[in-house]
Amino acid sequence: MASFIDRLRQASREANSLVCVGLDVNPASMPLTIQRHLNPILDFNKAIIDATADVVCAYKPNLAFYEQLGPAGMEILAETVKHIPRGKIIIADAKRGDIGNTAKAYAKALFEVYGFDAATVSPYLGRDSLQPFLDYTDKGIFVLCKTSNPGSAEFQNLAVKSEDGVVRPLYEVVADRVTSWNEHGNCGLVVGATYPDELTRVRRIAPDLPILIPGIGAQAGDLEASVKNGVDANGELALITSSRAIIYASASDDFDLAARRAAIALRDAINRIRMVGRGDQ
Amino acid sequence: MASFIDRLRQASREANSLVCVGLDVNPASMPLTIQRHLNPILDFNKAIIDATADVVCAYKPNLAFYEQLGPAGMEILAETVKHIPRGKIIIADAKRGDIGNTAKAYAKALFEVYGFDAATVSPYLGRDSLQPFLDYTDKGIFVLCKTSNPGSAEFQNLAVKSEDGVVRPLYEVVADRVTSWNEHGNCGLVVGATYPDELTRVRRIAPDLPILIPGIGAQAGDLEASVKNGVDANGELALITSSRAIIYASASDDFDLAARRAAIALRDAINRIRMVGRGDQ
Repeated sequence: MASFIDRLRQASREANSLVCVGLDVNPASMPLTIQRHLNPILDFNKAIIDATADVVCAYKPNLAFYEQLGPAGMEILAETVKHIPRGKIIIADAKRGDIGNTAKAYAKALFEVYGFDAATVSPYLGRDSLQPFLDYTDKGIFVLCKTSNPGSAEFQNLAVKSEDGVVRPLYEVVADRVTSWNEHGNCGLVVGATYPDELTRVRRIAPDLPILIPGIGAQAGDLEASVKNGVDANGELALITSSRAIIYASASDDFDLAARRAAIALRDAINRIRMVGRGDQ
Repeated sequence: MASFIDRLRQASREANSLVCVGLDVNPASMPLTIQRHLNPILDFNKAIIDATADVVCAYKPNLAFYEQLGPAGMEILAETVKHIPRGKIIIADAKRGDIGNTAKAYAKALFEVYGFDAATVSPYLGRDSLQPFLDYTDKGIFVLCKTSNPGSAEFQNLAVKSEDGVVRPLYEVVADRVTSWNEHGNCGLVVGATYPDELTRVRRIAPDLPILIPGIGAQAGDLEASVKNGVDANGELALITSSRAIIYASASDDFDLAARRAAIALRDAINRIRMVGRGDQ
Protein backbone atom coordinates (compact mmCIF):
# COMPACT_ATOMS: atom_id res chain seq x y z
CA MET A 1 0.00 0.00 0.00
CA ALA A 2 1.24 3.47 -0.86
CA SER A 3 2.51 5.51 2.09
CA PHE A 4 0.95 8.85 3.00
CA ILE A 5 3.89 10.69 1.48
CA ASP A 6 3.53 8.68 -1.74
CA ARG A 7 -0.15 9.56 -1.89
CA LEU A 8 0.63 13.24 -1.36
CA ARG A 9 3.25 13.16 -4.11
CA GLN A 10 0.76 11.43 -6.39
CA ALA A 11 -1.94 14.02 -5.67
CA SER A 12 0.53 16.80 -6.51
CA ARG A 13 1.62 15.18 -9.75
CA GLU A 14 -1.93 14.51 -10.94
CA ALA A 15 -2.91 18.18 -10.57
CA ASN A 16 0.62 19.40 -11.37
CA SER A 17 0.08 21.55 -8.30
CA LEU A 18 1.51 22.23 -4.85
CA VAL A 19 -1.54 24.28 -3.87
CA CYS A 20 -3.46 23.41 -0.70
CA VAL A 21 -6.72 25.31 -0.21
CA GLY A 22 -7.47 26.33 3.38
CA LEU A 23 -11.19 25.98 4.02
CA ASP A 24 -11.42 28.54 6.83
CA VAL A 25 -15.08 29.41 6.73
CA ASN A 26 -16.19 32.84 7.78
CA PRO A 27 -19.90 33.35 7.10
CA ALA A 28 -19.54 37.14 7.00
CA SER A 29 -17.05 36.94 4.12
CA MET A 30 -19.33 34.86 1.90
CA PRO A 31 -21.41 36.36 -0.93
CA LEU A 32 -24.81 37.63 0.18
CA THR A 33 -26.73 35.36 -2.18
CA ILE A 34 -25.23 32.21 -0.69
CA GLN A 35 -25.86 33.51 2.81
CA ARG A 36 -29.56 33.02 2.08
CA HIS A 37 -29.13 29.30 1.37
CA LEU A 38 -30.47 26.73 3.81
CA ASN A 39 -26.91 25.53 4.55
CA PRO A 40 -24.80 28.41 3.26
CA ILE A 41 -21.37 27.33 4.54
CA LEU A 42 -21.64 23.80 3.20
CA ASP A 43 -22.87 25.06 -0.15
CA PHE A 44 -20.06 27.59 -0.23
CA ASN A 45 -17.44 24.92 0.54
CA LYS A 46 -18.88 22.57 -2.08
CA ALA A 47 -18.79 25.29 -4.74
CA ILE A 48 -15.17 26.13 -3.86
CA ILE A 49 -14.18 22.46 -3.99
CA ASP A 50 -15.97 21.85 -7.29
CA ALA A 51 -14.31 24.88 -8.83
CA THR A 52 -10.76 24.09 -7.70
CA ALA A 53 -10.38 20.31 -7.38
CA ASP A 54 -8.53 19.75 -10.65
CA VAL A 55 -5.94 22.48 -10.00
CA VAL A 56 -4.99 21.79 -6.37
CA CYS A 57 -3.61 18.76 -4.55
CA ALA A 58 -5.01 19.23 -1.04
CA TYR A 59 -7.68 20.84 1.12
CA LYS A 60 -7.16 21.94 4.68
CA PRO A 61 -10.25 22.75 6.74
CA ASN A 62 -9.26 24.56 9.91
CA LEU A 63 -11.25 23.01 12.74
CA ALA A 64 -11.49 26.18 14.83
CA PHE A 65 -13.76 27.83 12.28
CA TYR A 66 -16.18 24.89 12.42
CA GLU A 67 -15.99 24.48 16.19
CA GLN A 68 -17.01 28.10 16.74
CA LEU A 69 -20.31 27.27 15.00
CA GLY A 70 -21.16 24.68 17.67
CA PRO A 71 -22.25 21.09 16.94
CA ALA A 72 -23.85 22.19 13.64
CA GLY A 73 -20.42 23.33 12.51
CA MET A 74 -19.10 19.80 12.95
CA GLU A 75 -21.88 18.50 10.69
CA ILE A 76 -20.76 21.00 8.05
CA LEU A 77 -17.17 19.84 8.52
CA ALA A 78 -18.13 16.18 8.08
CA GLU A 79 -20.14 16.92 4.92
CA THR A 80 -17.36 19.11 3.54
CA VAL A 81 -14.81 16.32 3.92
CA LYS A 82 -17.17 13.88 2.20
CA HIS A 83 -17.51 16.22 -0.76
CA ILE A 84 -13.79 16.36 -1.52
CA PRO A 85 -12.95 14.06 -4.46
CA ARG A 86 -10.89 10.92 -3.99
CA GLY A 87 -7.21 11.37 -4.62
CA LYS A 88 -7.04 14.78 -2.97
CA ILE A 89 -5.27 14.98 0.38
CA ILE A 90 -7.55 16.25 3.16
CA ILE A 91 -5.71 17.77 6.09
CA ALA A 92 -7.34 18.51 9.45
CA ASP A 93 -5.70 21.73 10.58
CA ALA A 94 -6.31 20.90 14.23
CA LYS A 95 -2.93 21.30 15.93
CA ARG A 96 -3.86 18.61 18.42
CA GLY A 97 -1.49 17.33 21.05
CA ASP A 98 -2.44 15.24 24.06
CA ILE A 99 -1.43 12.03 25.75
CA GLY A 100 -2.35 8.34 25.86
CA ASN A 101 -6.06 7.61 25.60
CA THR A 102 -6.83 11.22 24.74
CA ALA A 103 -4.46 11.31 21.79
CA LYS A 104 -6.04 8.06 20.66
CA ALA A 105 -9.49 9.66 20.81
CA TYR A 106 -8.30 12.69 18.82
CA ALA A 107 -6.73 10.47 16.16
CA LYS A 108 -9.91 8.41 15.96
CA ALA A 109 -12.06 11.54 15.66
CA LEU A 110 -9.99 13.04 12.86
CA PHE A 111 -9.04 9.93 10.90
CA GLU A 112 -12.04 7.65 11.42
CA VAL A 113 -15.04 9.78 12.33
CA TYR A 114 -14.34 12.74 10.03
CA GLY A 115 -12.25 10.85 7.50
CA PHE A 116 -9.21 13.11 7.18
CA ASP A 117 -6.02 11.88 5.50
CA ALA A 118 -3.73 13.89 7.77
CA ALA A 119 -3.69 16.25 10.73
CA THR A 120 -1.52 19.04 12.04
CA VAL A 121 -0.22 18.26 15.53
CA SER A 122 1.91 19.89 18.22
CA PRO A 123 5.29 18.45 19.21
CA TYR A 124 5.40 19.81 22.78
CA LEU A 125 4.32 16.60 24.52
CA GLY A 126 6.84 14.40 22.72
CA ARG A 127 6.73 11.43 20.39
CA ASP A 128 4.78 9.12 22.69
CA SER A 129 1.92 11.60 22.65
CA LEU A 130 1.77 11.32 18.86
CA GLN A 131 2.14 7.56 18.69
CA PRO A 132 -1.65 6.99 18.37
CA PHE A 133 -1.54 9.18 15.24
CA LEU A 134 1.58 7.44 13.92
CA ASP A 135 -0.10 4.07 14.43
CA TYR A 136 -2.45 4.97 11.59
CA THR A 137 0.37 4.16 9.20
CA ASP A 138 -1.64 5.15 6.12
CA LYS A 139 -2.50 8.59 7.54
CA GLY A 140 -0.17 11.57 7.88
CA ILE A 141 0.83 14.07 10.54
CA PHE A 142 2.30 17.51 10.00
CA VAL A 143 4.16 18.49 13.15
CA LEU A 144 4.38 22.18 14.05
CA CYS A 145 8.00 23.18 13.63
CA LYS A 146 8.42 26.91 12.90
CA THR A 147 5.03 28.61 12.78
CA SER A 148 4.19 31.71 10.72
CA ASN A 149 3.13 34.05 13.54
CA PRO A 150 5.27 37.04 14.59
CA GLY A 151 5.84 35.62 18.08
CA SER A 152 6.85 32.11 17.04
CA ALA A 153 10.46 32.73 18.08
CA GLU A 154 9.51 33.01 21.76
CA PHE A 155 9.90 29.27 22.28
CA GLN A 156 10.66 27.84 18.83
CA ASN A 157 13.93 29.75 18.48
CA LEU A 158 15.22 29.16 22.00
CA ALA A 159 18.80 27.93 21.95
CA VAL A 160 18.83 24.27 22.92
CA LYS A 161 22.07 22.75 24.12
CA SER A 162 22.45 19.05 23.38
CA GLU A 163 24.51 16.61 25.42
CA ASP A 164 27.41 16.87 22.99
CA GLY A 165 27.48 20.65 23.46
CA VAL A 166 25.91 21.62 20.12
CA VAL A 167 23.55 24.58 20.41
CA ARG A 168 20.67 25.02 17.97
CA PRO A 169 17.15 26.45 17.96
CA LEU A 170 14.32 24.32 19.29
CA TYR A 171 12.53 24.17 15.92
CA GLU A 172 15.60 22.48 14.40
CA VAL A 173 15.56 19.87 17.16
CA VAL A 174 11.89 19.27 16.38
CA ALA A 175 12.62 18.89 12.66
CA ASP A 176 15.39 16.44 13.45
CA ARG A 177 13.27 14.30 15.77
CA VAL A 178 10.29 14.18 13.44
CA THR A 179 12.59 12.92 10.68
CA SER A 180 13.41 9.98 12.94
CA TRP A 181 9.69 9.27 13.51
CA ASN A 182 9.01 8.86 9.79
CA GLU A 183 9.24 5.07 9.74
CA HIS A 184 6.07 4.63 7.70
CA GLY A 185 6.36 7.59 5.34
CA ASN A 186 3.68 9.42 7.31
CA CYS A 187 5.42 12.44 8.88
CA GLY A 188 5.63 16.02 7.71
CA LEU A 189 6.42 19.43 9.18
CA VAL A 190 4.77 22.85 9.32
CA VAL A 191 6.96 25.88 8.56
CA GLY A 192 5.53 29.35 7.97
CA ALA A 193 6.13 31.16 4.66
CA THR A 194 7.05 34.18 6.77
CA TYR A 195 10.35 32.53 7.76
CA PRO A 196 12.12 31.58 4.50
CA ASP A 197 15.57 31.20 6.10
CA GLU A 198 14.27 28.81 8.73
CA LEU A 199 12.52 26.93 5.93
CA THR A 200 15.88 26.38 4.24
CA ARG A 201 17.35 24.99 7.45
CA VAL A 202 14.38 22.69 8.02
CA ARG A 203 14.50 21.39 4.43
CA ARG A 204 18.18 20.60 4.93
CA ILE A 205 17.44 18.66 8.15
CA ALA A 206 14.45 16.87 6.65
CA PRO A 207 15.17 16.37 2.94
CA ASP A 208 12.46 13.74 2.43
CA LEU A 209 9.57 15.08 4.50
CA PRO A 210 6.62 17.02 3.14
CA ILE A 211 6.45 20.56 4.47
CA LEU A 212 3.14 22.34 4.89
CA ILE A 213 3.74 26.06 4.34
CA PRO A 214 1.03 28.47 5.47
CA GLY A 215 1.44 32.25 5.56
CA ILE A 216 1.25 33.23 1.88
CA GLY A 217 -1.27 35.99 1.19
CA ALA A 218 -2.91 37.60 4.22
CA GLN A 219 0.20 37.01 6.33
CA ALA A 220 2.47 38.33 3.55
CA GLY A 221 4.83 35.39 3.40
CA ASP A 222 7.27 35.36 0.50
CA LEU A 223 6.02 32.98 -2.22
CA GLU A 224 9.21 32.77 -4.24
CA ALA A 225 11.43 32.05 -1.25
CA SER A 226 8.88 29.62 0.18
CA VAL A 227 8.78 27.53 -2.96
CA LYS A 228 12.53 27.65 -3.63
CA ASN A 229 13.42 26.85 -0.03
CA GLY A 230 10.53 24.52 0.69
CA VAL A 231 10.54 21.96 -2.12
CA ASP A 232 12.55 18.75 -1.98
CA ALA A 233 15.32 17.85 -4.45
CA ASN A 234 12.66 16.94 -7.03
CA GLY A 235 10.79 20.22 -6.69
CA GLU A 236 8.02 18.47 -4.76
CA LEU A 237 6.69 17.81 -1.23
CA ALA A 238 6.03 21.42 -0.35
CA LEU A 239 2.38 22.25 0.23
CA ILE A 240 1.71 25.94 -0.30
CA THR A 241 -1.41 26.81 1.63
CA SER A 242 -3.71 29.65 0.73
CA SER A 243 -7.04 30.30 2.31
CA ARG A 244 -8.61 33.76 2.20
CA ALA A 245 -6.87 34.79 -1.04
CA ILE A 246 -8.56 31.87 -2.82
CA ILE A 247 -11.89 31.28 -1.13
CA TYR A 248 -12.73 34.98 -0.73
CA ALA A 249 -11.18 36.07 -4.04
CA SER A 250 -14.58 37.59 -4.85
CA ALA A 251 -17.49 38.57 -2.60
CA SER A 252 -19.94 38.33 -5.51
CA ASP A 253 -21.79 35.47 -7.12
CA ASP A 254 -18.72 34.64 -9.20
CA PHE A 255 -16.83 33.63 -6.03
CA ASP A 256 -16.29 30.08 -7.29
CA LEU A 257 -14.90 31.17 -10.63
CA ALA A 258 -12.76 33.77 -8.87
CA ALA A 259 -11.49 31.08 -6.50
CA ARG A 260 -10.60 28.92 -9.47
CA ARG A 261 -8.73 31.78 -11.15
CA ALA A 262 -6.85 32.52 -7.91
CA ALA A 263 -5.95 28.85 -7.43
CA ILE A 264 -4.71 28.55 -11.02
CA ALA A 265 -2.71 31.76 -10.70
CA LEU A 266 -1.06 30.48 -7.51
CA ARG A 267 -0.41 27.05 -9.02
CA ASP A 268 1.19 28.60 -12.11
CA ALA A 269 3.27 31.06 -10.09
CA ILE A 270 4.55 28.19 -7.95
CA ASN A 271 5.26 26.02 -10.98
CA ARG A 272 7.23 28.81 -12.68
CA ILE A 273 9.36 29.15 -9.55
CA ARG A 274 10.00 25.45 -9.17
CA MET A 275 10.77 25.03 -12.87
CA VAL A 276 13.41 27.75 -12.62
CA GLY A 277 14.76 26.05 -9.52
CA ARG A 278 15.10 22.77 -11.43
CA GLY A 279 16.60 24.53 -14.43
CA ASP A 280 19.36 25.87 -12.17
CA GLN A 281 20.44 22.46 -11.00
CA MET B 1 -15.00 41.88 38.95
CA ALA B 2 -13.22 38.89 40.47
CA SER B 3 -10.34 37.53 38.41
CA PHE B 4 -10.33 33.94 37.16
CA ILE B 5 -7.83 32.96 39.82
CA ASP B 6 -10.02 34.56 42.50
CA ARG B 7 -13.01 32.61 41.25
CA LEU B 8 -11.03 29.39 41.29
CA ARG B 9 -9.86 30.05 44.85
CA GLN B 10 -13.45 30.81 45.84
CA ALA B 11 -14.73 27.58 44.27
CA SER B 12 -12.09 25.63 46.20
CA ARG B 13 -12.93 27.28 49.49
CA GLU B 14 -16.68 26.78 49.12
CA ALA B 15 -16.27 23.02 48.62
CA ASN B 16 -13.17 22.85 50.84
CA SER B 17 -11.77 20.85 47.95
CA LEU B 18 -8.95 20.86 45.41
CA VAL B 19 -10.60 18.05 43.42
CA CYS B 20 -11.27 18.51 39.71
CA VAL B 21 -13.33 15.76 38.07
CA GLY B 22 -12.24 14.79 34.57
CA LEU B 23 -15.33 14.05 32.48
CA ASP B 24 -13.65 11.74 29.98
CA VAL B 25 -16.59 9.79 28.67
CA ASN B 26 -16.13 6.26 27.47
CA PRO B 27 -19.46 4.62 26.66
CA ALA B 28 -18.05 1.12 27.12
CA SER B 29 -17.10 1.86 30.74
CA MET B 30 -20.58 3.02 31.74
CA PRO B 31 -23.06 0.80 33.60
CA LEU B 32 -25.22 -1.35 31.31
CA THR B 33 -28.50 0.08 32.55
CA ILE B 34 -27.53 3.63 31.58
CA GLN B 35 -26.28 2.42 28.19
CA ARG B 36 -29.94 1.71 27.39
CA HIS B 37 -30.97 5.35 27.99
CA LEU B 38 -31.92 7.57 25.04
CA ASN B 39 -28.90 9.82 25.71
CA PRO B 40 -26.70 7.63 27.90
CA ILE B 41 -23.55 9.75 28.02
CA LEU B 42 -25.36 12.95 28.93
CA ASP B 43 -27.40 11.17 31.59
CA PHE B 44 -24.22 9.60 32.94
CA ASN B 45 -22.45 12.96 33.10
CA LYS B 46 -25.45 14.61 34.78
CA ALA B 47 -25.61 11.88 37.42
CA ILE B 48 -21.88 12.20 38.11
CA ILE B 49 -22.16 15.99 38.39
CA ASP B 50 -25.22 15.84 40.66
CA ALA B 51 -23.48 13.34 42.93
CA THR B 52 -20.19 15.23 43.25
CA ALA B 53 -20.86 18.96 42.86
CA ASP B 54 -20.72 19.83 46.56
CA VAL B 55 -17.40 18.06 47.16
CA VAL B 56 -15.33 19.24 44.18
CA CYS B 57 -14.32 22.65 42.86
CA ALA B 58 -14.00 22.01 39.14
CA TYR B 59 -14.97 19.81 36.20
CA LYS B 60 -12.77 19.15 33.21
CA PRO B 61 -14.40 17.59 30.15
CA ASN B 62 -11.74 16.37 27.76
CA LEU B 63 -12.80 17.43 24.29
CA ALA B 64 -11.24 14.48 22.47
CA PHE B 65 -13.73 12.07 24.01
CA TYR B 66 -16.66 14.15 22.73
CA GLU B 67 -15.10 14.83 19.33
CA GLN B 68 -14.70 11.12 18.65
CA LEU B 69 -18.50 10.81 18.88
CA GLY B 70 -18.95 13.18 15.93
CA PRO B 71 -21.26 16.22 15.92
CA ALA B 72 -23.63 14.50 18.38
CA GLY B 73 -20.76 14.37 20.86
CA MET B 74 -20.50 18.14 20.75
CA GLU B 75 -24.19 18.41 21.64
CA ILE B 76 -23.52 16.21 24.66
CA LEU B 77 -20.57 18.40 25.58
CA ALA B 78 -22.67 21.57 25.37
CA GLU B 79 -25.45 20.06 27.51
CA THR B 80 -22.93 18.71 30.02
CA VAL B 81 -21.40 22.16 30.52
CA LYS B 82 -24.86 23.68 30.99
CA HIS B 83 -25.63 21.15 33.71
CA ILE B 84 -22.66 22.08 35.91
CA PRO B 85 -23.78 24.34 38.78
CA ARG B 86 -22.76 27.98 38.96
CA GLY B 87 -19.68 28.62 41.03
CA LYS B 88 -17.86 25.52 39.81
CA ILE B 89 -14.93 26.07 37.47
CA ILE B 90 -15.42 24.35 34.09
CA ILE B 91 -12.20 23.64 32.23
CA ALA B 92 -12.07 22.66 28.56
CA ASP B 93 -9.23 20.17 28.38
CA ALA B 94 -8.56 21.01 24.75
CA LYS B 95 -4.82 21.75 24.57
CA ARG B 96 -5.46 24.18 21.74
CA GLY B 97 -2.74 26.29 20.20
CA ASP B 98 -3.00 28.18 16.92
CA ILE B 99 -2.41 31.67 15.57
CA GLY B 100 -4.28 34.89 14.84
CA ASN B 101 -7.81 34.47 13.58
CA THR B 102 -7.73 30.75 14.29
CA ALA B 103 -6.81 31.18 17.93
CA LYS B 104 -9.62 33.72 18.15
CA ALA B 105 -12.07 31.18 16.73
CA TYR B 106 -10.92 28.52 19.22
CA ALA B 107 -11.28 30.93 22.14
CA LYS B 108 -14.74 31.93 20.93
CA ALA B 109 -15.77 28.29 20.54
CA LEU B 110 -14.64 27.30 24.02
CA PHE B 111 -15.53 30.41 26.01
CA GLU B 112 -18.61 31.73 24.19
CA VAL B 113 -20.22 28.86 22.30
CA TYR B 114 -19.63 26.10 24.86
CA GLY B 115 -19.39 28.37 27.91
CA PHE B 116 -16.20 27.10 29.54
CA ASP B 117 -14.47 29.12 32.28
CA ALA B 118 -10.99 28.05 31.26
CA ALA B 119 -9.08 26.00 28.69
CA THR B 120 -5.83 24.07 28.54
CA VAL B 121 -3.55 25.43 25.81
CA SER B 122 -0.16 24.68 24.29
CA PRO B 123 2.74 27.14 24.62
CA TYR B 124 4.66 26.09 21.50
CA LEU B 125 3.45 28.95 19.27
CA GLY B 126 4.26 31.68 21.78
CA ARG B 127 2.36 34.32 23.68
CA ASP B 128 0.89 36.10 20.66
CA SER B 129 -0.87 32.86 19.71
CA LEU B 130 -2.58 32.84 23.12
CA GLN B 131 -3.46 36.53 23.18
CA PRO B 132 -7.04 35.91 21.92
CA PHE B 133 -7.54 33.67 24.98
CA LEU B 134 -5.88 36.17 27.32
CA ASP B 135 -8.13 38.91 25.95
CA TYR B 136 -11.04 37.16 27.68
CA THR B 137 -9.78 38.63 30.95
CA ASP B 138 -12.45 36.86 33.04
CA LYS B 139 -11.60 33.43 31.60
CA GLY B 140 -8.56 31.32 32.42
CA ILE B 141 -5.88 29.42 30.53
CA PHE B 142 -3.79 26.54 31.83
CA VAL B 143 -0.64 26.38 29.74
CA LEU B 144 1.02 22.98 29.24
CA CYS B 145 4.30 23.08 31.13
CA LYS B 146 5.50 19.62 32.19
CA THR B 147 3.01 16.98 31.07
CA SER B 148 2.39 13.66 32.82
CA ASN B 149 3.31 11.28 29.96
CA PRO B 150 6.47 9.13 30.04
CA GLY B 151 7.91 10.88 26.98
CA SER B 152 7.32 14.47 28.11
CA ALA B 153 11.06 15.03 28.63
CA GLU B 154 11.77 14.70 24.90
CA PHE B 155 11.20 18.42 24.33
CA GLN B 156 10.06 19.79 27.71
CA ASN B 157 13.33 18.93 29.46
CA LEU B 158 15.67 20.10 26.71
CA ALA B 159 18.38 22.36 28.10
CA VAL B 160 17.70 25.92 27.00
CA LYS B 161 20.53 28.41 27.08
CA SER B 162 19.47 31.98 27.69
CA GLU B 163 21.35 35.06 26.48
CA ASP B 164 22.97 35.52 29.89
CA GLY B 165 24.34 31.98 29.74
CA VAL B 166 21.94 30.37 32.21
CA VAL B 167 20.88 26.86 31.19
CA ARG B 168 17.56 25.42 32.32
CA PRO B 169 14.94 23.02 31.01
CA LEU B 170 12.37 24.26 28.53
CA TYR B 171 9.44 23.65 30.89
CA GLU B 172 10.98 26.10 33.39
CA VAL B 173 11.26 28.74 30.68
CA VAL B 174 7.58 28.16 29.90
CA ALA B 175 6.64 28.50 33.58
CA ASP B 176 8.61 31.72 33.79
CA ARG B 177 7.06 33.26 30.69
CA VAL B 178 3.50 32.33 31.66
CA THR B 179 4.04 34.05 35.01
CA SER B 180 4.75 37.24 33.07
CA TRP B 181 1.54 36.82 31.02
CA ASN B 182 -0.65 36.78 34.14
CA GLU B 183 -1.60 40.46 34.05
CA HIS B 184 -5.28 39.77 34.62
CA GLY B 185 -5.10 36.90 37.09
CA ASN B 186 -6.08 34.49 34.33
CA CYS B 187 -3.04 32.24 33.77
CA GLY B 188 -2.26 28.81 35.16
CA LEU B 189 0.03 25.89 34.34
CA VAL B 190 -0.31 22.15 33.77
CA VAL B 191 2.19 19.89 35.53
CA GLY B 192 1.76 16.11 35.73
CA ALA B 193 1.51 14.35 39.10
CA THR B 194 4.05 11.89 37.71
CA TYR B 195 6.81 14.52 38.04
CA PRO B 196 6.77 15.74 41.66
CA ASP B 197 10.28 17.24 41.54
CA GLU B 198 9.49 19.29 38.47
CA LEU B 199 6.29 20.37 40.21
CA THR B 200 8.36 21.81 43.07
CA ARG B 201 10.48 23.77 40.62
CA VAL B 202 7.45 25.11 38.77
CA ARG B 203 5.74 26.14 42.01
CA ARG B 204 8.89 28.04 42.97
CA ILE B 205 8.95 29.87 39.62
CA ALA B 206 5.22 30.59 39.69
CA PRO B 207 4.23 31.04 43.34
CA ASP B 208 0.89 32.69 42.56
CA LEU B 209 -0.38 30.67 39.60
CA PRO B 210 -2.91 27.87 39.80
CA ILE B 211 -1.48 24.53 38.74
CA LEU B 212 -3.64 21.86 37.14
CA ILE B 213 -2.24 18.48 38.12
CA PRO B 214 -3.38 15.44 36.16
CA GLY B 215 -1.88 11.98 36.48
CA ILE B 216 -3.20 10.75 39.82
CA GLY B 217 -4.86 7.33 39.64
CA ALA B 218 -4.59 5.49 36.33
CA GLN B 219 -1.22 7.11 35.58
CA ALA B 220 0.02 6.36 39.11
CA GLY B 221 1.14 9.86 40.03
CA ASP B 222 2.10 10.42 43.65
CA LEU B 223 -0.78 12.13 45.48
CA GLU B 224 1.13 13.16 48.59
CA ALA B 225 4.03 14.71 46.68
CA SER B 226 1.66 16.35 44.20
CA VAL B 227 -0.31 18.10 46.90
CA LYS B 228 2.71 19.09 49.01
CA ASN B 229 4.67 20.34 46.04
CA GLY B 230 1.76 21.74 44.07
CA VAL B 231 -0.13 24.00 46.49
CA ASP B 232 0.73 27.66 46.96
CA ALA B 233 1.87 29.19 50.26
CA ASN B 234 -1.74 29.09 51.51
CA GLY B 235 -2.25 25.43 50.66
CA GLU B 236 -4.40 26.40 47.68
CA LEU B 237 -4.35 26.86 43.88
CA ALA B 238 -3.49 23.28 43.04
CA LEU B 239 -6.18 21.42 41.11
CA ILE B 240 -5.86 17.68 41.55
CA THR B 241 -7.55 16.05 38.59
CA SER B 242 -9.05 12.60 38.69
CA SER B 243 -11.12 11.07 35.96
CA ARG B 244 -11.49 7.31 35.66
CA ALA B 245 -10.95 6.65 39.38
CA ILE B 246 -14.00 8.80 40.15
CA ILE B 247 -16.40 8.48 37.25
CA TYR B 248 -15.86 4.74 36.78
CA ALA B 249 -15.51 3.91 40.48
CA SER B 250 -18.33 1.41 39.98
CA ALA B 251 -19.66 -0.24 36.82
CA SER B 252 -23.02 -0.94 38.49
CA ASP B 253 -26.13 1.14 39.05
CA ASP B 254 -24.55 2.71 42.12
CA PHE B 255 -21.94 4.43 39.92
CA ASP B 256 -23.03 7.90 41.03
CA LEU B 257 -22.81 7.06 44.73
CA ALA B 258 -19.50 5.33 44.14
CA ALA B 259 -18.25 8.43 42.28
CA ARG B 260 -19.31 10.56 45.24
CA ARG B 261 -17.49 8.29 47.68
CA ALA B 262 -14.36 8.35 45.52
CA ALA B 263 -14.47 12.15 45.22
CA ILE B 264 -14.92 12.57 48.98
CA ALA B 265 -12.09 10.13 49.68
CA LEU B 266 -9.79 12.04 47.34
CA ARG B 267 -10.85 15.42 48.75
CA ASP B 268 -10.21 14.22 52.30
CA ALA B 269 -6.87 12.63 51.45
CA ILE B 270 -5.77 15.89 49.82
CA ASN B 271 -7.01 17.97 52.75
CA ARG B 272 -5.15 15.80 55.27
CA ILE B 273 -1.94 16.32 53.28
CA ARG B 274 -2.35 20.06 52.95
CA MET B 275 -3.30 20.46 56.62
CA VAL B 276 -0.10 18.68 57.61
CA GLY B 277 1.77 20.92 55.20
CA ARG B 278 0.32 24.02 56.85
CA GLY B 279 0.96 22.61 60.35
CA ASP B 280 4.62 22.26 59.45
CA GLN B 281 5.03 25.90 58.60
